[in-house]
Amino acid sequence: MTIRVFLVGFGNVGRSLGEILLRNPPLSDVEVAGVANSKGSVLVEGPADKAKLAKILSSGERLEKHPSFRPGLGPVEGAVVSGAHVAMITLPPSYETGEPNRSIYYGLLEEEISIITADKTVLALDYARVTGEARRRCLFLGYRATVAAGTPALDSARGLKGRGVEEVRAVLNASTNYILGLVEEGYSYEEAVEKAIQAKLAEPDPRIDLEGYDPAAKLAILASTLGYEASLRDVVRVPLTEISEDDVREALRKGKRVKYVAYADFTRGTFRVEPRVVDSGDPLASAVGEDNVIVFQLESTSIVLKGPAGPAWRTAKVMVIDLIEYAERLEEAGLCGCS
Amino acid sequence: MTIRVFLVGFGNVGRSLGEILLRNPPLSDVEVAGVANSKGSVLVEGPADKAKLAKILSSGERLEKHPSFRPGLGPVEGAVVSGAHVAMITLPPSYETGEPNRSIYYGLLEEEISIITADKTVLALDYARVTGEARRRCLFLGYRATVAAGTPALDSARGLKGRGVEEVRAVLNASTNYILGLVEEGYSYEEAVEKAIQAKLAEPDPRIDLEGYDPAAKLAILASTLGYEASLRDVVRVPLTEISEDDVREALRKGKRVKYVAYADFTRGTFRVEPRVVDSGDPLASAVGEDNVIVFQLESTSIVLKGPAGPAWRTAKVMVIDLIEYAERLEEAGLCGCS
Repeated sequence: MTIRVFLVGFGNVGRSLGEILLRNPPLSDVEVAGVANSKGSVLVEGPADKAKLAKILSSGERLEKHPSFRPGLGPVEGAVVSGAHVAMITLPPSYETGEPNRSIYYGLLEEEISIITADKTVLALDYARVTGEARRRCLFLGYRATVAAGTPALDSARGLKGRGVEEVRAVLNASTNYILGLVEEGYSYEEAVEKAIQAKLAEPDPRIDLEGYDPAAKLAILASTLGYEASLRDVVRVPLTEISEDDVREALRKGKRVKYVAYADFTRGTFRVEPRVVDSGDPLASAVGEDNVIVFQLESTSIVLKGPAGPAWRTAKVMVIDLIEYAERLEEAGLCGCS
Repeated sequence: MTIRVFLVGFGNVGRSLGEILLRNPPLSDVEVAGVANSKGSVLVEGPADKAKLAKILSSGERLEKHPSFRPGLGPVEGAVVSGAHVAMITLPPSYETGEPNRSIYYGLLEEEISIITADKTVLALDYARVTGEARRRCLFLGYRATVAAGTPALDSARGLKGRGVEEVRAVLNASTNYILGLVEEGYSYEEAVEKAIQAKLAEPDPRIDLEGYDPAAKLAILASTLGYEASLRDVVRVPLTEISEDDVREALRKGKRVKYVAYADFTRGTFRVEPRVVDSGDPLASAVGEDNVIVFQLESTSIVLKGPAGPAWRTAKVMVIDLIEYAERLEEAGLCGCS
């Protein structure tokens, strides 16, 4: 059976995903059924459409340049009309209202379309409801790319559910980690943020990183995957810039590091994102550049996971891992469906 | 539906598992249907049998002391007769012949009984065949407890399958790691091994650790889970004692450490277990005591996972994680079975 994939979002990650699926498909039977951006959709209805999509990917042109671009055709309708089995979502986040992300997710699930996502919005705000809806409808909801995309953080969390993890301490935002590194070298926050945006290591709206929305959303999803109730709204966010550039460099001179730490205490039910001074021997101190580091604290021991997170091409690769799992589950369901 | 569990093996891990399932069951509908050791089986056929099994667990007495012990009743027959849905296997390893483990696994699968195991024998020797058989019969085969039990190594590997992991370097054997620590302190291998056996940190037959069978089996299972073909038979094992106690201490004096390293190069298809001198900054050097450390090397980056592995009670807890996943899959199959 050919798996028809509809791409929701055509930014850096969406384009990387398009590149992989068109040029280097991970499975023999995967087709791009269509692509939506915020303005409309392209339905890929034959080799010509496919070739033009490939050209748009190479040239970096906007999706609207595609001759088959249909303005106003939204992602849910586009996915349905194109006969997609699964939508791969790389929407920009929308943490204040949750829209249009929420409506898109529930719209897709209502139309029996499975979801693979790098966007954190709905899982961070509505984890129980959206995962419950997918489960109820026997649909796949893959979200490996939402936390530390590139490092198996969520896989680890899934294996630790029920083990009594008491705390999580983590560096989950490559952008602020990179910025702190530049501040340590002598740059101001303003200069460091500008360099991060140029390096495509910061969201277009840098507040998402600097005010802690991004790591807070990841913390909520990680905690939910560990089996705890957690929402972005529960996370107390202290902006990175609450600590001055001078204090960042002072910590370094004293043999410590300032890190933007996401912290959950499951015993107390508290969640925070804030800049913290950590000892140089702390695993969090060893997060350099684009690294994420996650410490799962159990009663008498701790588990530490460290690895790369992002950028766009790596996030897209991780979404493809979810796609492979989706394909495996389909095959299993086909074989084992009625027993 | 009540999940009926048959315990195959009644050593340290099997007993820990029995304790959890009888005193602190993780799910409301789990029952111990029976227990087998190498001499026979107990079928738990009512409250009296259950109470006596609990007493045997408290007292540490042999299974044969159970009034309902049936000598000669093997684990496959015992599991079938007791109406078990899933067997939880904690057999001792059998790396030379693979028996009786192989016959037990295939016997259970043939009888449509799912498997959760901490025993590595069959997965290390026969991964493709045994996982294929379980998949073909739509049975669950859980084996989280076989590698770094306590640290989500296999969960991580599953999430890295298809990511192009090029190498794995790991400290996977708590026993030899503990022994090396004692040697660094001044003990001879003979003294260190004796202390490890007393601390229940070494297999009854210490050759399994000292000659590298245990880490080699784990390396094979880890590699297989990453998607590569790997068998215990492919692993070149250099015994730990090839490096002298003096050289171990010499390394320490030079600011390095000797570690018993399991190594796989997937590009070359080579697998080795051998003592190696590692720099103090190497993640492997930071494995102390019962820690396992696994480094997954990708093309341009690495992922490091570190955490506790074993002892028996922790291994049993990890098997229970598999049991919870089994229960979730049953529920999903029930809801989503025929669509």
